Amino acid sequence: MSTDSNGETDAQLNEERAREQLVELAAEFYDQFDQGDVPRMTLPTRTKSNIVFDEDSDVWVYGDRTSSRTANSVRGARKLLKAIYTVDFLAQQLEEDRSSTLRELYYLSESWDSEDAQFSDQDESNQLVEDLEIVSEVTREDFHMRPEESGATLMGPLLLREQTRRGEREIHCQEDVGEGGYQIPNNPDTIEFLDHDIDFVMCVETGGMRDRLVENGFDDDYNCLVVHLKGQPARATRRITKRLHDELDLPVLVFTDGDPWSYRIFGSVAYGSIKSAHLSEYLATPEAQYVGIRPQDIVEYDLPTDPLSDSDVNALESELDDPRFQTDFWEEQIELQLDIGKKSEQQALASRGLDFVTDTYLPDRLKEMGVL
Amino acid sequence: MSTDSNGETDAQLNEERAREQLVELAAEFYDQFDQGDVPRMTLPTRTKSNIVFDEDSDVWVYGDRTSSRTANSVRGARKLLKAIYTVDFLAQQLEEDRSSTLRELYYLSESWDSEDAQFSDQDESNQLVEDLEIVSEVTREDFHMRPEESGATLMGPLLLREQTRRGEREIHCQEDVGEGGYQIPNNPDTIEFLDHDIDFVMCVETGGMRDRLVENGFDDDYNCLVVHLKGQPARATRRITKRLHDELDLPVLVFTDGDPWSYRIFGSVAYGSIKSAHLSEYLATPEAQYVGIRPQDIVEYDLPTDPLSDSDVNALESELDDPRFQTDFWEEQIELQLDIGKKSEQQALASRGLDFVTDTYLPDRLKEMGVL
Repeated sequence: MSTDSNGETDAQLNEERAREQLVELAAEFYDQFDQGDVPRMTLPTRTKSNIVFDEDSDVWVYGDRTSSRTANSVRGARKLLKAIYTVDFLAQQLEEDRSSTLRELYYLSESWDSEDAQFSDQDESNQLVEDLEIVSEVTREDFHMRPEESGATLMGPLLLREQTRRGEREIHCQEDVGEGGYQIPNNPDTIEFLDHDIDFVMCVETGGMRDRLVENGFDDDYNCLVVHLKGQPARATRRITKRLHDELDLPVLVFTDGDPWSYRIFGSVAYGSIKSAHLSEYLATPEAQYVGIRPQDIVEYDLPTDPLSDSDVNALESELDDPRFQTDFWEEQIELQLDIGKKSEQQALASRGLDFVTDTYLPDRLKEMGVL
Repeated sequence: MSTDSNGETDAQLNEERAREQLVELAAEFYDQFDQGDVPRMTLPTRTKSNIVFDEDSDVWVYGDRTSSRTANSVRGARKLLKAIYTVDFLAQQLEEDRSSTLRELYYLSESWDSEDAQFSDQDESNQLVEDLEIVSEVTREDFHMRPEESGATLMGPLLLREQTRRGEREIHCQEDVGEGGYQIPNNPDTIEFLDHDIDFVMCVETGGMRDRLVENGFDDDYNCLVVHLKGQPARATRRITKRLHDELDLPVLVFTDGDPWSYRIFGSVAYGSIKSAHLSEYLATPEAQYVGIRPQDIVEYDLPTDPLSDSDVNALESELDDPRFQTDFWEEQIELQLDIGKKSEQQALASRGLDFVTDTYLPDRLKEMGVL
């Protein structure tokens, strides 16, 4: 996190920008009314067929196809009314330096004076906040919308400073935390990296494997920052991973189970998700590398496996069609997996003994990849 | 956590006891063989009909009905063989001061020299570890078996000392942590409570509500320790809650959504689960009180609701039959809920504004309950 000449942090600058953008959006609606135009909001179409690779930023972003929300029907007018109420709430929330969850926003709408502005379900309010992110080009976090899910824990040689509501906290992510590690806050842009001795960042899917690496002292022996993804990673987890890569210039490795759902976890760290391609530049780490479990490992290490289910096969086939997975590496691995019809979990490495992963599997793989 | 005259902590004493118990179990099998008896393990039957209320400890424990695992069939003999290999592994794990997850144990069995001793699925190894807990009268944590799921975070006026593999850590759960709070370790018996300013412990189901209480400074204003349950609480979370109650003599309150699944969350904090009634004395906090959301709140505060689904109705009806819910309070609330046919989430309180929960709902309820 950098500090500008007025002593404001990135997080503070982003919030100001968010507020300005919201006010501007309201002003646009006002102008449309004023000029006798039908008010409208134009957004990129959010489907797999409308994501394109952006060569500059190395991430997948929305293409040129757009769709409009206009007030030329009762339904459309209601949508824009809800948008205006939400903009008003968010601007006030930023003014008061408060925050809320998406679910709270949904419920809070029940207290709004116009019944037409109240959301009929949470999908509707979630979608609207995403729309507002896209049109205002800031993130939900900048609106002070908190996620429901909590983010990752960190363990490794990193000293950081977190700006909390109760003052600053300086925390070393090995020396000042228990075995559970440092719990990152909902908005990791409140964190500043002060000092570190990290050689690479390892994002780990399961708690069992995270604990194995920590118990075996892998973070200490290899100067590794262990990030626990907790399954499909929360936005906060992806954000801090990206910042660790960009600001500290560190290699990012992703270590998951060997099945299609885990490849999606890797995909969401590396490429971003289709649903939030507008956030790829904020959340995605395109340089992230996949360390395993690879279908090839299942064969080479003769790991215990489960057969692929029908939904596994479908997911793999859908990944073959996914632009984000169209690389030689992924095509080869996915085709091999469809061929052998098996999947394996990262903890299956324990079939070779509890130290196999830290003594052999990871060091060998990391040397092969040029990280060690 | 107390320390005995030899300077050993409870956790260390428990581990020694676990090791002794395992060796004793192996010795028993040996004696049975030696005397020409068919080896056997006798266990309480683990069904809803065999849990009884223990007046002394105030928790639900197994009744008198037992079932036996004997080696008088090939299947039974294989079960005992697996038990012996597992006992051997666990004893060695304790000897080396290492730990592992249930899933690792399952996979590790593939490396055992006898193919008959290998587990055919993880249910089998999980069940065996539970059996060993019951016959040896120690807990999985004392065997150094780690859970897959990570435990709670704490936020509040508590100073603790955690014994980690890398030395002792003294952490204040407001001053030394970020907004994410203190992440408790897998085995909270490595924690010693040093000092505190807590008036009551509040276990909160959802992350959204946990963050609301922390943002609104509820922990600070009311000297409250906020424990985030993260849905159905992990064993570590239930254990630390019990220890906070027993050792610091603090009221424990449980704040969840208003639906049958959330009442089960309360039940697992207060009464323990049927599957692990043998652990009730270790994990359950029978004095825990339910603060809401109550079906009555749905009516009184006119909260936004969802209709009960068929599975909700079935779960409520099953709770009416559950000995743990046979109190006037629960019968009244569950019957009211079946009557109105509605459920409500804790974040639905946001329909009265974001501060309603901390300014009105909780203070009123806690006064009514005599906690404030």
